[in-house]
Amino acid sequence: MIIMQTVKDKLKNIGEDVLSQIKEGKNPSLEIPIRSFSNIIYDEKIKLLRLGDKTSRRYFFNVAHAKKFMQTLIIATRCKDLLDEKIHASLREMFYNVKHTLQNSNENTFDEQTESDDIIEDLEVMLGTLREQLHLNADASGRIVGNMSIIDAGDTIHLNKLGTGGWHIPSNVEDIKFDRIDAEYVFVVEKDAAFERLNEDKFWKKNKCILVSTHGQAARGTRRLIRRLNKEHDLPVIVFTDCDAYGWYIYSVLKAGSMNLAHTSEKLATPDAKFIGLTMTDIVEYDLKKHTIKATEQDIRRAKELLNYKWFQHPLWQREIKLMLKKGYKAELQALASRGFKFISETYLPDKIEKKDFLP
Amino acid sequence: MIIMQTVKDKLKNIGEDVLSQIKEGKNPSLEIPIRSFSNIIYDEKIKLLRLGDKTSRRYFFNVAHAKKFMQTLIIATRCKDLLDEKIHASLREMFYNVKHTLQNSNENTFDEQTESDDIIEDLEVMLGTLREQLHLNADASGRIVGNMSIIDAGDTIHLNKLGTGGWHIPSNVEDIKFDRIDAEYVFVVEKDAAFERLNEDKFWKKNKCILVSTHGQAARGTRRLIRRLNKEHDLPVIVFTDCDAYGWYIYSVLKAGSMNLAHTSEKLATPDAKFIGLTMTDIVEYDLKKHTIKATEQDIRRAKELLNYKWFQHPLWQREIKLMLKKGYKAELQALASRGFKFISETYLPDKIEKKDFLP
Repeated sequence: MIIMQTVKDKLKNIGEDVLSQIKEGKNPSLEIPIRSFSNIIYDEKIKLLRLGDKTSRRYFFNVAHAKKFMQTLIIATRCKDLLDEKIHASLREMFYNVKHTLQNSNENTFDEQTESDDIIEDLEVMLGTLREQLHLNADASGRIVGNMSIIDAGDTIHLNKLGTGGWHIPSNVEDIKFDRIDAEYVFVVEKDAAFERLNEDKFWKKNKCILVSTHGQAARGTRRLIRRLNKEHDLPVIVFTDCDAYGWYIYSVLKAGSMNLAHTSEKLATPDAKFIGLTMTDIVEYDLKKHTIKATEQDIRRAKELLNYKWFQHPLWQREIKLMLKKGYKAELQALASRGFKFISETYLPDKIEKKDFLP
Repeated sequence: MIIMQTVKDKLKNIGEDVLSQIKEGKNPSLEIPIRSFSNIIYDEKIKLLRLGDKTSRRYFFNVAHAKKFMQTLIIATRCKDLLDEKIHASLREMFYNVKHTLQNSNENTFDEQTESDDIIEDLEVMLGTLREQLHLNADASGRIVGNMSIIDAGDTIHLNKLGTGGWHIPSNVEDIKFDRIDAEYVFVVEKDAAFERLNEDKFWKKNKCILVSTHGQAARGTRRLIRRLNKEHDLPVIVFTDCDAYGWYIYSVLKAGSMNLAHTSEKLATPDAKFIGLTMTDIVEYDLKKHTIKATEQDIRRAKELLNYKWFQHPLWQREIKLMLKKGYKAELQALASRGFKFISETYLPDKIEKKDFLP
């Protein structure tokens, strides 16, 4: 509730600020932090990608700015409406809602969703808030189970009593309250099939953890939920992906944020996260050599990019990535099934967790 | 439990049959229904795509058959193991598990997952069973909420107490028991954002329905769950997609099955399903003309294909599809947000449901 009040106040401030500029006879303008690459920095102290301090001004009386100025105020108004009505909307719904033709003209307020999405990101940085706190929902995917109860929309949900399915992580997890947590860490897997394997084998029960599937690249709601569990409840986060550039990138985004959403890292990313596998060393260690796959050109290209990421400069990561480039192969976590279906949950993971065999 | 016993028996029968052929000095063989297009028919009586009666024989002493014969027995054996161990596996895990190099040779049992997937489909048709009943899980996606309780893996799950997230539909819904159902129909939406809109607006509570999101093309688990609710509990099924060829195809697969999985239609499809919208007529009726999108070449091509589908021969569907081809535009269900965020749940859907304004 505190957050909602603050965001609403911030939105009101935009309007009041513009009004007072008009009353003073000024050319109304808005100050907006710059989101382009030139203003994205990796902050060594907090171990996150974030925006620098550069800003720009958007003026009403400026032919190049006027339309965007109008769009900013329209979106800000509709976000305040959402907060007032206590409802949420998707980015696409917002686009359709704000798109209309200006009276006595052929000019549309918005023509493409990219325009409204862009303004929404501007608002996020202007207000230092997540779009979710503006009641705008992103795509949802991912699921969660574990010894934990949460309160969401008035329901108390016991995440240890959800059968084989688990709780579908919604797009917006801002209002979720953690009611009871009896777990020692959060275990994040990239793949639904691995989630189902570990869930069936009661991995989270035996190992006292919370089990999350991202279902590929993690959606914002899933990233935010993982961060909240880490920051608000001091739970370590362990990530398990395929041994390939795409898997490492999923980990990278969870850990340090992404370039195109650098302004959200401080609310979505989890710099403390650790990587358990699958590693190149595991392939030798666990006799998976015969189950590797030739790395594609895309793998190679992406792996070379990752080599330069500041948060992959640790010698262990450099070795890992270079080993892949040298050997020219990759492996999926399902390759562990060649050692037996339960090998992953009864041998591989407990082994590595006991030895604390993680990459940073 | 009855199902499990039967499937296990059927698997045992395969082995016993081969054994007795060997004892009789015959060339061991397996009879397998043909899955190619030549054997796919649309059965007017049950309103479903299904396989015809053509079969072929796979012989051990036949150079062209020997490898597939071996593969069939390997997969059948591992499926029986899964049933014995009471665990499930994904198709990918199964592939890794059965892939190995034959002793004193360079010959692999399986080289690509397409080979093991293919044999699994053979087993499905041979045994008249779903791969899920062989404990093989497909991809999972989709979520569900509503006035209903289910029992899954020993947990009683109240689908009306799951906050904004809902229950993540697992890949395999064979063992789910319906504990209590207090709903009048199943409402299926194509998009997660629409699910979240309707869930937030308590649509399922106010309209006494069960709300399902397929998240695009429905996964097998979701299709199976919808069919089970329809067949086992006589619940009508109403489907809501975008007004475009892809949306209609999602409906088509839910209703009549798909060509490449024709052998599963009788267990996955719901011929009784009705289509509520978004329709071409809605675009005029609800003043969405300004929010249409130009149909792409792919839309046009697919729409022309759909025109020939036997289950789209109804005059209402022919008119609908031809109207799209004539006008050259399509529309997304989110376009309704142009009339207000809650318009969809408070006006559009209740209107159409009251008037029973459905396409067959």
